[in-house]
Amino acid sequence: MRGSQLTGYEAETRFLDDVTVELVKHSASDSDVLWAARVSTAGEKSLEEVGKDPARSKGLINYLMRDRHGSPFEHNSMTFLIGAPIFVFREFHRHRVGWSYNEESGRYRELQPNFYVPGAERKLVQEGRPGKYVFVEGSEEQHKVVKEAMEASYRQSYAAYREMLEAGVAREVARAVLPVGLFSTMYATCNARSLMHFLSLRTKNEQAKVPSFPQREIEMVGEKMEAAWSALMPLTHAAFVETGRIAP
Amino acid sequence: MRGSQLTGYEAETRFLDDVTVELVKHSASDSDVLWAARVSTAGEKSLEEVGKDPARSKGLINYLMRDRHGSPFEHNSMTFLIGAPIFVFREFHRHRVGWSYNEESGRYRELQPNFYVPGAERKLVQEGRPGKYVFVEGSEEQHKVVKEAMEASYRQSYAAYREMLEAGVAREVARAVLPVGLFSTMYATCNARSLMHFLSLRTKNEQAKVPSFPQREIEMVGEKMEAAWSALMPLTHAAFVETGRIAP
Amino acid sequence: MRGSQLTGYEAETRFLDDVTVELVKHSASDSDVLWAARVSTAGEKSLEEVGKDPARSKGLINYLMRDRHGSPFEHNSMTFLIGAPIFVFREFHRHRVGWSYNEESGRYRELQPNFYVPGAERKLVQEGRPGKYVFVEGSEEQHKVVKEAMEASYRQSYAAYREMLEAGVAREVARAVLPVGLFSTMYATCNARSLMHFLSLRTKNEQAKVPSFPQREIEMVGEKMEAAWSALMPLTHAAFVETGRIAP
Amino acid sequence: MRGSQLTGYEAETRFLDDVTVELVKHSASDSDVLWAARVSTAGEKSLEEVGKDPARSKGLINYLMRDRHGSPFEHNSMTFLIGAPIFVFREFHRHRVGWSYNEESGRYRELQPNFYVPGAERKLVQEGRPGKYVFVEGSEEQHKVVKEAMEASYRQSYAAYREMLEAGVAREVARAVLPVGLFSTMYATCNARSLMHFLSLRTKNEQAKVPSFPQREIEMVGEKMEAAWSALMPLTHAAFVETGRIAP
Repeated sequence: MRGSQLTGYEAETRFLDDVTVELVKHSASDSDVLWAARVSTAGEKSLEEVGKDPARSKGLINYLMRDRHGSPFEHNSMTFLIGAPIFVFREFHRHRVGWSYNEESGRYRELQPNFYVPGAERKLVQEGRPGKYVFVEGSEEQHKVVKEAMEASYRQSYAAYREMLEAGVAREVARAVLPVGLFSTMYATCNARSLMHFLSLRTKNEQAKVPSFPQREIEMVGEKMEAAWSALMPLTHAAFVETGRIAP
Repeated sequence: MRGSQLTGYEAETRFLDDVTVELVKHSASDSDVLWAARVSTAGEKSLEEVGKDPARSKGLINYLMRDRHGSPFEHNSMTFLIGAPIFVFREFHRHRVGWSYNEESGRYRELQPNFYVPGAERKLVQEGRPGKYVFVEGSEEQHKVVKEAMEASYRQSYAAYREMLEAGVAREVARAVLPVGLFSTMYATCNARSLMHFLSLRTKNEQAKVPSFPQREIEMVGEKMEAAWSALMPLTHAAFVETGRIAP
Repeated sequence: MRGSQLTGYEAETRFLDDVTVELVKHSASDSDVLWAARVSTAGEKSLEEVGKDPARSKGLINYLMRDRHGSPFEHNSMTFLIGAPIFVFREFHRHRVGWSYNEESGRYRELQPNFYVPGAERKLVQEGRPGKYVFVEGSEEQHKVVKEAMEASYRQSYAAYREMLEAGVAREVARAVLPVGLFSTMYATCNARSLMHFLSLRTKNEQAKVPSFPQREIEMVGEKMEAAWSALMPLTHAAFVETGRIAP
Repeated sequence: MRGSQLTGYEAETRFLDDVTVELVKHSASDSDVLWAARVSTAGEKSLEEVGKDPARSKGLINYLMRDRHGSPFEHNSMTFLIGAPIFVFREFHRHRVGWSYNEESGRYRELQPNFYVPGAERKLVQEGRPGKYVFVEGSEEQHKVVKEAMEASYRQSYAAYREMLEAGVAREVARAVLPVGLFSTMYATCNARSLMHFLSLRTKNEQAKVPSFPQREIEMVGEKMEAAWSALMPLTHAAFVETGRIAP
């Protein structure tokens, strides 16, 4: 039985300081918002007619956002393939409404040795008290401690994982030693409304009228999703920003 | 002010015995299930590779359905434009998870005189007791009573609605007299998993391993949605049927 | 078979101008918010200890509300028995998240002749355009038209319903003629977070920092629920009001 | 700044082979199901009257379960305080509907050194292929490898965490090295319907008519929740078991 679960281990340990977000599929445009809204008020228009008048389209979307008519923003769909550490997905999965997830399974697969180590621009030090935290630059020494402590700890944890696998222990048992800094991969499907709710809590922005306190690493995911979404639905994105990043 | 809310009323009263369902937009195929499932087990494949081997694809989808791995069936999207009486939408809206709705508003629009009258094939008589109801054919006399009582009552209700509108009363007040047999229009967006859950409760089928007791009129909507969906995702639909119409 | 579905009809037609809301069951207090929040930050305290210091309790709840930590407001439960016209429940059921519903069924029961007619204080006339509507007083004449048109129409619709029932037609068919002004009864269970979301959209208030445009009749339900809830969770309610009625 | 985030570290490392589940609050009984169901069919009874006839109560609950009338099982609430490793909560949080969560935060708190090591009865070896896995006893040698590899790895990971904290690094950064076998604490609130759905997927049982493949550690949580729930709602629990553990 020994080794029967091994997938031919050759992967090299990698330390990564960034997340990845790829828009793999979508059915999402500003006109999806327009026709959904117009069924309420003006009868179902053919999809071609809707949005012929850009100024009116922009006005209608701004009005819906401002007056919190949320449902027209749900008739669209975006699927992202996200690579990020487990501690990011732990926060991500707390978003329950309008989100679908499929994540790499440590029960079915041998997990690969890719780990998160903060980059040079990651502020390492937290000051203040709960609700008033601010992050400030870490010293060179602190960056060195983080890099060395993390890399050594990650290597050792992964070696323990491999040792158990090689002894024939099930993946789902052996994985207990793997750290939350391990990278995982996930498909996440959402709509513009659920994405706006996510962004309002998981990104910070000077234009925001409501407070948010995201951990930097989930914000990095959010920023990449926002960039992809804003290209698909520019009027909706602009309205979200102008309304102070309050999800309708 | 009088008449200021009127939209130039010219509509003729219509009595309809069928519902309408149009698939207006979708991003849904069997391969969406495959790649979502494979991120768990075999790493993210390029979307082109997935589904190259039809027999394996069918096997994987059947396995997911049977063993109730539900989440891979969520990364897809279908939007339907549905015309049906209000009493159908009353039941429809009880489906809360994985469904998005935008329905014609009686607050923003003057509602049009389209009403539901059962067709000749609608069984009119209910026998037995709760949990054991069966529907049987109505007599010719009963069909006549239904047709006449409904048409007269609908006409009268609509006349009262119009009378109030013409007196300058707000649409949202005047609509109180309109019957639940009035046709409304709705965009409904779902994914394959939420649709299967709907179908397992709102359609009846000899292959079903779980009981369902739908009102015929919502089942008519369900049957049309199922026809459209099965063309988009034939392997998924076949697996749903073979598994006894239990949603995963 | 004729008459087999009749429940011994004797009910008198009633015209009602108000809704009813009864809190039938609850497990909801401000301390539920406190211990839920403290598991995140300070370890699980015994429930007795929590909330010993009223000033700190108030401060913590205000902080959670303002900084949009929503989940601590979910670990509580309130069940209301609500009597209201169908058009109110049509809007109510659009609230999908954190709400559970059981409503009187027109398929299983013969519905009773209780109908909504607006009271003298209900503003009947709508002016302006979508997004800018204001309601103004109706004239005495308009109130008379509404009262007479509604009462006559309701009586006639109900007579048609009874006629079909007496001919042996199934309740679920005959009900098609019943108006959306008919009273229905529903149990609705929610938590403080889902209730706040409901209130922020379905009630109007000068303190609100976000806009809302509820129909008056659902607002009447909302006001009664808010009164019951504020007695159970006074600190949470106060924080909701002070934060501008934005649900966390 | 150094040390400013430390909470006076004195905790001793603990290795635990079991999870903990405490029912901290509830408003849940079989009669909650009965009155919710009866509003649909027989008018709202006073809560005292409901359930006077035990045989009829049992019959009604069995009927609701079998015929998949799910909503009457939602008007109740149970809050559990759960202690379990992070890899269990990772699976737990995938249950999105009818569940509320508040978990200990690694951003706000210094996490304590409590770790999961499988007990002697935990089967360590997985045989077969996906969809057909079976777990079999591990050898004494395998148990020894697991115990030694885990304990050493956990100690080392926690030492790296402490080293970074002592260097003044923020908790949310330093925690990246902590393993998914670390114990966490969570309040989870659900209702009987959402709990049944959880149990049908996360526990195994010979009476089950639908397949489930839970990891043993989340099943241990499920079994303890089921024991607490069955004492609160014995008729509902019995109906769930008799119906083959299919959630309505």
